[in-house]
Amino acid sequence: MAVATELDDVYTYIDSHADESLEELQTLLRQPSVAAQNHGMAETAALVEDMLRSVGFEPRQIATAGYPVVYAEKPGQRDRTLGFYNHYDVQPADPLDEWHSDPWAAEVRDGRIWARGVADNKGNIAARVAGIRAWQAIRGELPIGVKFIIEGEEEISSPSLMDFAVSNPELCAADACIWEFGGRDIDGRPQIHLRLKGICYVELRATGARQDWHSSVATSVPNPAWRLVWALNAIKGEDGHVNIPGFYDSVTPPTDAEIEALRALPDHEAARLEDLGIPEFLEGRSGLELHLQDYFQPTCTVSGFESGYTGDGAKTVLPSRAKAKLDMRLVANQDPFAIHASLRAFLDERGFDDIETELLGAQYPARTSPDAPIAAVVAETYEDLYGQSPVVYATSQGSGPWYQLCSQFGIDACTAGVGHAKSQAHAPNENIYVDDFILGIKHICAIMDRFARS
Amino acid sequence: MAVATELDDVYTYIDSHADESLEELQTLLRQPSVAAQNHGMAETAALVEDMLRSVGFEPRQIATAGYPVVYAEKPGQRDRTLGFYNHYDVQPADPLDEWHSDPWAAEVRDGRIWARGVADNKGNIAARVAGIRAWQAIRGELPIGVKFIIEGEEEISSPSLMDFAVSNPELCAADACIWEFGGRDIDGRPQIHLRLKGICYVELRATGARQDWHSSVATSVPNPAWRLVWALNAIKGEDGHVNIPGFYDSVTPPTDAEIEALRALPDHEAARLEDLGIPEFLEGRSGLELHLQDYFQPTCTVSGFESGYTGDGAKTVLPSRAKAKLDMRLVANQDPFAIHASLRAFLDERGFDDIETELLGAQYPARTSPDAPIAAVVAETYEDLYGQSPVVYATSQGSGPWYQLCSQFGIDACTAGVGHAKSQAHAPNENIYVDDFILGIKHICAIMDRFARS
Repeated sequence: MAVATELDDVYTYIDSHADESLEELQTLLRQPSVAAQNHGMAETAALVEDMLRSVGFEPRQIATAGYPVVYAEKPGQRDRTLGFYNHYDVQPADPLDEWHSDPWAAEVRDGRIWARGVADNKGNIAARVAGIRAWQAIRGELPIGVKFIIEGEEEISSPSLMDFAVSNPELCAADACIWEFGGRDIDGRPQIHLRLKGICYVELRATGARQDWHSSVATSVPNPAWRLVWALNAIKGEDGHVNIPGFYDSVTPPTDAEIEALRALPDHEAARLEDLGIPEFLEGRSGLELHLQDYFQPTCTVSGFESGYTGDGAKTVLPSRAKAKLDMRLVANQDPFAIHASLRAFLDERGFDDIETELLGAQYPARTSPDAPIAAVVAETYEDLYGQSPVVYATSQGSGPWYQLCSQFGIDACTAGVGHAKSQAHAPNENIYVDDFILGIKHICAIMDRFARS
Repeated sequence: MAVATELDDVYTYIDSHADESLEELQTLLRQPSVAAQNHGMAETAALVEDMLRSVGFEPRQIATAGYPVVYAEKPGQRDRTLGFYNHYDVQPADPLDEWHSDPWAAEVRDGRIWARGVADNKGNIAARVAGIRAWQAIRGELPIGVKFIIEGEEEISSPSLMDFAVSNPELCAADACIWEFGGRDIDGRPQIHLRLKGICYVELRATGARQDWHSSVATSVPNPAWRLVWALNAIKGEDGHVNIPGFYDSVTPPTDAEIEALRALPDHEAARLEDLGIPEFLEGRSGLELHLQDYFQPTCTVSGFESGYTGDGAKTVLPSRAKAKLDMRLVANQDPFAIHASLRAFLDERGFDDIETELLGAQYPARTSPDAPIAAVVAETYEDLYGQSPVVYATSQGSGPWYQLCSQFGIDACTAGVGHAKSQAHAPNENIYVDDFILGIKHICAIMDRFARS
């Protein structure tokens, strides 16, 4: 339940322009922008520029080795600057046959908007633009300076963003940053995250004969699918332990305060299990043990594996190629580049020098202090608007370029957004609630207002 | 170099009708018939019936639990019967982008016909029909009775053929059988095979959460791709040994005579390695050791593996499903059904009861005696027509329903066909030489003639 605030005039404008804001979001959602497949990227960058131009910014595209960054800034009444970090790329939409409506149709159904990227994170781009539009329509000049850094490679692990940041520190400079995602937990309670995991994403490839062959020759011809099975098994065996030398060495154990914070987290286990459709969590973990695993341990995930014939029925083939994607989520203070180098050396040492590796993405883990002013601003405005104090998580389980854009410059950041626990980011039937989208627009105005007065 | 024989009149007819025979083959090749994908099967069965009808047979389709068997028979001058076993289905054509011409276009280029199924085994169906046509055009009645058993499920391991054979022993009855494939080795020398390996083809499936999920939850949510990697590694580890209990128990070691025959085989190792594009055979094997592996040892091959995101670039996903195809080629006296049961028990015992298994194909290994009359008939006619004595292999490395159609009824069988060492059966750019196709038509006439007089 929202309480009356000084921003009622702005909120009234937002409510009376809800349809236009929703249409602007749908336009953005109907433009595919899959970085992994180079699908619609230039069109989407131009569309995002148009959106920023429509609220008085003068955006520009800054070239990188990959997709350009859309950058825009505008001064405000106070000489302090709030950054908004977002990304205009989205995940691939497949498996398409599991969607209940076209992922690019942005259908509104049962009070929700269903589309690839609506939660992650085009809903937040649109809410931030709409919030600025509302403020300016009612109040004129923004209360603070605002800058947008909207990259095009977040879903492929932001490979160009470190170069961008190091080459353009003045563009990154800000007094605080609102991160690209955020939203409600499974009880509908808002959440705040003050840390992101890092990531080391590696493709592994094996090759055998010059092409697929009749499987009868398998007596004597190497099989790249077996090579990759054995290499992956060497990396992580049935015990779940990652055997890459040094992998766990720099994992920082939680402090007593962090453990206490974990104990205070709400218990969502039953609802999560039901949502996932599994009978129990890995190793039967629960309670604090589960939280410690989720928030303070790294992962090593086979995100994809392909070799040979994968259609229906039987094809008696000896594959000529095999590839796998290995997605490692890192916790403080693991180094993705050091881990990739150690993986390479491990494979060579273990006799898998025939397995090629390619580092497709690397992010350092990063953090904001729980005492940072921006954390209080986001928490207080969430409480005002959502009628509930947010749950504060030391870390998200996800990753992103928080280190590149913020931590390396000493900028504090905090999450805020329009998602919810069943938004299905990265999965079929991604969605947000229309009501949350409108509330998110108001939240942006409240954050700017409170940050100007903090 | 062919020597003059009593069949010169028939051979002259074959040469002067070569274009029509080639066109009939192309018509058959341009009709796709992929059993694994249920693509064009009914059309192809009807087309094969038309071909048999055009040479005076009265074919019929005999229903099975899967695709029907096309059956036809015709008496001859002598009261003895030669069976022709063939199949009208072919392998899937993918990967399509590796073909130099459309796999269904049956293009003639550089003296070869390029098409999916031309070597395996539509070229042999067409050669057998054309041989019968030529004989009848010049000589009238066939010298012996002939029957065709042309099934539609060979490339998916003939799941219905045991039922067909047990239900219709009178249709299988024959004095000898010419098997569906055959051809020249890498030196151009004809080959004869007197045995086939068996096969046990199993699909393995693992499931995790109810759908693909953001990979950040991999701390606590099971990953079916890892489950399948670990299960496969348990089945066969880096040492190449198959750990399914009893897998090797009934493997029959070669006799002294068989070992001597292996020693007499021509040395094609350098050419095979070049063709395969690999530097050496598995474990660096060579000579007799390589032959023993190729002809007297079973295989255990991952023929396919699919899970999660397999496109370009990075997608940070936790897969919800994984599947793999396991292709085990069996030698005498391994039992495919016993091996599948042992695999299932092994997985349960090893803690992989979550991995589903489905037996997609099973064939017993089978054999013909080297002293069988049909082996001499095929060898002598090969020598007459090709000018070289054939290389006799105790076994093919491939598999097929030899046990179902022949061995269980005490029928001797022998291979004869129009393929060559680079025919690329089951692979892109499958092909045969036009000259070999015409020679193969003559060979059918020579076999009928010699078998009638033997």
